[in-house]
Amino acid sequence: MSNVATGPSPDRVMQVGLGFWASKALLSAVEMGIFTELAHGPEEFNGLAGRLGLHPRAARDFLDALVALGFLHRTQDRYCNAPDADLFLDRNKPSYIGGMLEMANARLYGFWNHLTEALRTGQPQNESKSDAGASPFTALYADPARLKAFLAAMSGISHGANLAIARQVPWTKYKTYADLGTAQGDLAVQIALANPHLQGIGLDLPEVGPVFEDYAKANGVSERLRFEPGDFFRGPLPAVDVLTMGHILHDWNLAEKKMLVSKAYAALNPGGALVIYDAVIDDDRSKNAFGLLMSLNMLIETPGGFDYTGADCIGWMKEAGFRDAYMEHLAGPDSMVVGFKE
Amino acid sequence: MSNVATGPSPDRVMQVGLGFWASKALLSAVEMGIFTELAHGPEEFNGLAGRLGLHPRAARDFLDALVALGFLHRTQDRYCNAPDADLFLDRNKPSYIGGMLEMANARLYGFWNHLTEALRTGQPQNESKSDAGASPFTALYADPARLKAFLAAMSGISHGANLAIARQVPWTKYKTYADLGTAQGDLAVQIALANPHLQGIGLDLPEVGPVFEDYAKANGVSERLRFEPGDFFRGPLPAVDVLTMGHILHDWNLAEKKMLVSKAYAALNPGGALVIYDAVIDDDRSKNAFGLLMSLNMLIETPGGFDYTGADCIGWMKEAGFRDAYMEHLAGPDSMVVGFKE
Repeated sequence: MSNVATGPSPDRVMQVGLGFWASKALLSAVEMGIFTELAHGPEEFNGLAGRLGLHPRAARDFLDALVALGFLHRTQDRYCNAPDADLFLDRNKPSYIGGMLEMANARLYGFWNHLTEALRTGQPQNESKSDAGASPFTALYADPARLKAFLAAMSGISHGANLAIARQVPWTKYKTYADLGTAQGDLAVQIALANPHLQGIGLDLPEVGPVFEDYAKANGVSERLRFEPGDFFRGPLPAVDVLTMGHILHDWNLAEKKMLVSKAYAALNPGGALVIYDAVIDDDRSKNAFGLLMSLNMLIETPGGFDYTGADCIGWMKEAGFRDAYMEHLAGPDSMVVGFKE
Repeated sequence: MSNVATGPSPDRVMQVGLGFWASKALLSAVEMGIFTELAHGPEEFNGLAGRLGLHPRAARDFLDALVALGFLHRTQDRYCNAPDADLFLDRNKPSYIGGMLEMANARLYGFWNHLTEALRTGQPQNESKSDAGASPFTALYADPARLKAFLAAMSGISHGANLAIARQVPWTKYKTYADLGTAQGDLAVQIALANPHLQGIGLDLPEVGPVFEDYAKANGVSERLRFEPGDFFRGPLPAVDVLTMGHILHDWNLAEKKMLVSKAYAALNPGGALVIYDAVIDDDRSKNAFGLLMSLNMLIETPGGFDYTGADCIGWMKEAGFRDAYMEHLAGPDSMVVGFKE
């Protein structure tokens, strides 16, 4: 029986296999606004459970599970937010990233229950299943409430990478930029904030305009940053020094990806640069689990989207005519690939 | 902007919040039998993807995600099992624990999508939702295929703890034992294998008999281990020196838990012991996340079940008349509580 003591343990298999327990507990906590509630200050169990509408049966188990997972702290009978939960999961802070988790809770968690079917058929498993042939974004953009939540979610998960791009790209060489599929505009805003000499454009479908303009105004960069309504897929791209595309390229199939890279090359001013970022997969495809799982999420969510390695993207850029290209890590799972036009 | 570099990072929030991606990828891999397939030896991508029926669109992403998660290894284009996946996720090995994950994939993953409703109502979210008032085990025991899968799943996740109990309890002092809710009988079998002087009984509903007897025979302990059909909830318990209850007590509400502990006390021979084990929660309820999440799983699965701390269980034992009791860690998240009768 000594093989049991010295051999592999089943703990990691069980931990990942039942990892949806911890995941869904956090998603439900975000849905209920627990961290927003506790951002006002520590609360005793009775008051907190009452205000959240938790049934007595499992209220303590739920809150204590969040303690054991490290998202809450508890002293005596008082619960408070852990520092990362307080910063990133309080709806009233600009650093809130819970929008993505709210969306995951309301949509993705259920869609991923059909992962096996997706893997066997190659077909998406989201709302488009009952609306075959529609663009994955048609339903989204048609509903203002869902659109706003989606845009906020995108800002939330992109903010760290956006701040890094605002500093890491050699902006001093350039005067103008445009962010394609800009959504709420956090990347365009962060670039403007960190580089007062730049003039920028945020391009997205017309429905996004008001949300973008509010956000630019709130950040005090409206004078250097304007919204341009347009479809980067079908319409022309702005002629600028730098084009940026964050969490865009992975939505599309190979032909579409190459088309977008070529279109960006054609639109850029001479000497300009294309900055693409996503959860870029490591070239050996053996380390960035998040990027590979994000690619499976593109399977669930889009007709042909997939994530890619830095080498893949550099290859598409070279093929489109870019003189030189490199990949650089940004934040968390995100990296950027930068291509330079002659 | 320096607060971003020095402050908390959103990485852990995103990793746990989207943790269902990794979890569901592993569950789908178990469902498809990937690890059983690769237990025969390494396979090239094309052969493996073809045999598993993976659509080309995301076949590589899926397999490479399992590489990045550490459950597969890849050399050139050949995939093979990581050691823990090979030992615990190959259906043909007795060490297989995938039964629990198959069950999680087919049932629990979807039920947990209703965690928020469970937390607000205190009501289970499994099959019993459409069959109110039924015992949580009625449907299970009525379907031989589901029952067999459930029993194998229970053996799988209990095996490490069962081996520990077979060694850690002071068995030399005792001659007879009975395992209540014995299922396939792995605990009873491991105790018999490690302690040749003992005579044992496995007690469970009559439907379980054939599965238990096959398992005892396969392990060569049929002469010292017999099946006794019975309902530990309603019927009498065997009079033996040691009674064991593994992953049983957490299924029931407080009154039912106390009743079972009292009933065990009454049935035990003088000087006997009661051994209870579960994913016992640490007394401070701030560390064993698995135990607390298991308790939420009891919310999803049962009308009143919950997990408990060592102090809780020792308290119920003392209240029932046990002279002395202690808690001891077994394996993974499991600990046992042992109570001694005068």
